Amino acid sequence: MKFEIMRHRLLDGLNDVMKAVSLKTTVPILTGIKLEITEEGLILTGSDLDITIQTFIKAEEDGDQIIRVIEEGSIVVQARMFNEIVRKLPTSEVVIEVNDNYHTHIRSGKSKFHLIGQEASDYPLLPEIQEDHQFTIPANLVKSIVRETVFAVSTSESRPVLTGVLWQVKEGELVCVATDSHRLARRKVNLEQPPEGEYSVVIPGKSLNELSKIIGDSSLPVNIAITNQQILFKAENVLLYSRLLEGNYPDTSRLIPTEYKTTVTMSGKALFQAIDRASLLAREERNNIVRLSSLNDNIIEVSSSSPEIGEVEEEIQSSSNEGEEIKISFSAKYMLDALKALDGHDVIVQFTGGMRPFILNTVHNDAVLQLIVPVRTY
Amino acid sequence: MKFEIMRHRLLDGLNDVMKAVSLKTTVPILTGIKLEITEEGLILTGSDLDITIQTFIKAEEDGDQIIRVIEEGSIVVQARMFNEIVRKLPTSEVVIEVNDNYHTHIRSGKSKFHLIGQEASDYPLLPEIQEDHQFTIPANLVKSIVRETVFAVSTSESRPVLTGVLWQVKEGELVCVATDSHRLARRKVNLEQPPEGEYSVVIPGKSLNELSKIIGDSSLPVNIAITNQQILFKAENVLLYSRLLEGNYPDTSRLIPTEYKTTVTMSGKALFQAIDRASLLAREERNNIVRLSSLNDNIIEVSSSSPEIGEVEEEIQSSSNEGEEIKISFSAKYMLDALKALDGHDVIVQFTGGMRPFILNTVHNDAVLQLIVPVRTY
Repeated sequence: MKFEIMRHRLLDGLNDVMKAVSLKTTVPILTGIKLEITEEGLILTGSDLDITIQTFIKAEEDGDQIIRVIEEGSIVVQARMFNEIVRKLPTSEVVIEVNDNYHTHIRSGKSKFHLIGQEASDYPLLPEIQEDHQFTIPANLVKSIVRETVFAVSTSESRPVLTGVLWQVKEGELVCVATDSHRLARRKVNLEQPPEGEYSVVIPGKSLNELSKIIGDSSLPVNIAITNQQILFKAENVLLYSRLLEGNYPDTSRLIPTEYKTTVTMSGKALFQAIDRASLLAREERNNIVRLSSLNDNIIEVSSSSPEIGEVEEEIQSSSNEGEEIKISFSAKYMLDALKALDGHDVIVQFTGGMRPFILNTVHNDAVLQLIVPVRTY
Repeated sequence: MKFEIMRHRLLDGLNDVMKAVSLKTTVPILTGIKLEITEEGLILTGSDLDITIQTFIKAEEDGDQIIRVIEEGSIVVQARMFNEIVRKLPTSEVVIEVNDNYHTHIRSGKSKFHLIGQEASDYPLLPEIQEDHQFTIPANLVKSIVRETVFAVSTSESRPVLTGVLWQVKEGELVCVATDSHRLARRKVNLEQPPEGEYSVVIPGKSLNELSKIIGDSSLPVNIAITNQQILFKAENVLLYSRLLEGNYPDTSRLIPTEYKTTVTMSGKALFQAIDRASLLAREERNNIVRLSSLNDNIIEVSSSSPEIGEVEEEIQSSSNEGEEIKISFSAKYMLDALKALDGHDVIVQFTGGMRPFILNTVHNDAVLQLIVPVRTY
């Protein structure tokens, strides 16, 4: 095996696959990444068994030679070390050559590294995914869906299924739901070419976060194929396989109120900043709770206090405030997360009294819904 | 006490004094900072007893009003909270008002904070420094001196005096020395207006690091006053007081060889990068040791190996290589630190065999000397 490659292209590929490599694995070969060089190009694979990322670097692209293939072959090299070496090499080309006994030579300028590699056939095979149940979403929409939902997954392993996001395909629509039982985030997407049948899978939050990092911010399609135990996301030159979570995802539809008694419209940015400041004092207390109440003249007050440190009051001018007066307390962190997901747009907040969950949407679009369960303090 | 101040100027001042505030102090009032407002402006003070930083914000600067003083007075407020509040306030002006019982009101736009303050007279007084023994160094030279020496102080408390940098004023010259007994950094400075007499003090490395952060990168003078137990650095609008370390600093002059057998001149940058790469493998071993040897044709080889991972060889073309052949092993970290202090310039490295300490200077200037004690492996 021997090839010469443009160093920055190799680095870009390593950046992606390194996201799947765990240093704490119980399977020693998974601390490595697999390199396979053919006439077409270089395939890099990294995996921690839960997530597998594979990226392909074409030998030639738009008439430019990226890789000069001298001898085909494959090897597994220690991931972290290989990545750091390539990052620090002195010139823009790297020659990688494997001799007998998996000895891997990496040369660049006057720098020569010799690493002890491992047999490529010992590396786990990729999961098998039948590609008959597929649909397609643009990459930037996938990134939005992840950003709007994944923060709400549970971080506790007491109900493992809640550490993932439910993706449900039904009647031409994809509905994504995440909840840790104190708050909920839901995103609906109309699919242009929906697959036949219905699917309902729970994707680990971590997998979606890594997916979001490796796909570009473009409108190029991401192809999504679902089987019982795995999901495969195929973007341009990069594949991410993720294990699915087992167990029944709870029915969350009954959590969302069907009627509201107070509706407030205001700047999401102003609300975010007020809560953010109020949270400075709130988080000194164990619970990080802030209070929200409607005053006269469409003014919304956000406040918090800490007996040892002091108090804070913030006033926000809402653009409309209809229905009953409201006094409610909730976690500042959940509210900040929800407002971040709504991306600073003007928001509609709908309450059903101080004891019931309340929801947030943007003014423009109800495809995203954020729900927060209040805390009883009044 | 009541005044209105430009928020970003208050933040700049807080940035400086916060560097002296420790959250782990045993003296509760030192988790606060002292604010004193007079007609002239605002004085902020922060301290952990070892270091005290005081900054002055003028009420008026170049005809612009920075502070509107309504009532003079002083207060101590919780440092971290006050700093975070000011950082997040919504408008560019802040009103600070203290009522009865040290209640401190902070207002900006529609945001109102009420903090519980403490009596300013309970705050420790500044150390008294007689200002008759003084000298002056430009701010950017102070920053250079710190950068070139302070990294070499000991991090171990077994010989506390070695955690500081020796500053010795003698015969119109300032000599600064730091050593952890495995390496040494020395910087000499000719003083333009030396003080009378001789001084020799040991300044904690931490104090010098903080000093370097709060003085600007200008040629404005920093006034330095020394007493038995304290040193005071006075820059424009900011003062730093530091405790001095007690104990006798060892005589380091005998550590520095007086004759050399091998002299190599090469690019400091090329040497840095080669050592940096070799260190990727070296640091997998416990000691982080790299080898350097002179080959034919003025080539210097840097190498390292790790039995489980592999080997690395780097070649550097030196511009001259005079004297005996050299083979020597040393800590990659010490070499990288020394080369960083020499700032990427071309370097002269002088050896006295593989067992004796070796030194580095830049080609242009011998005011900075870096010494490294080798490790016996050959």
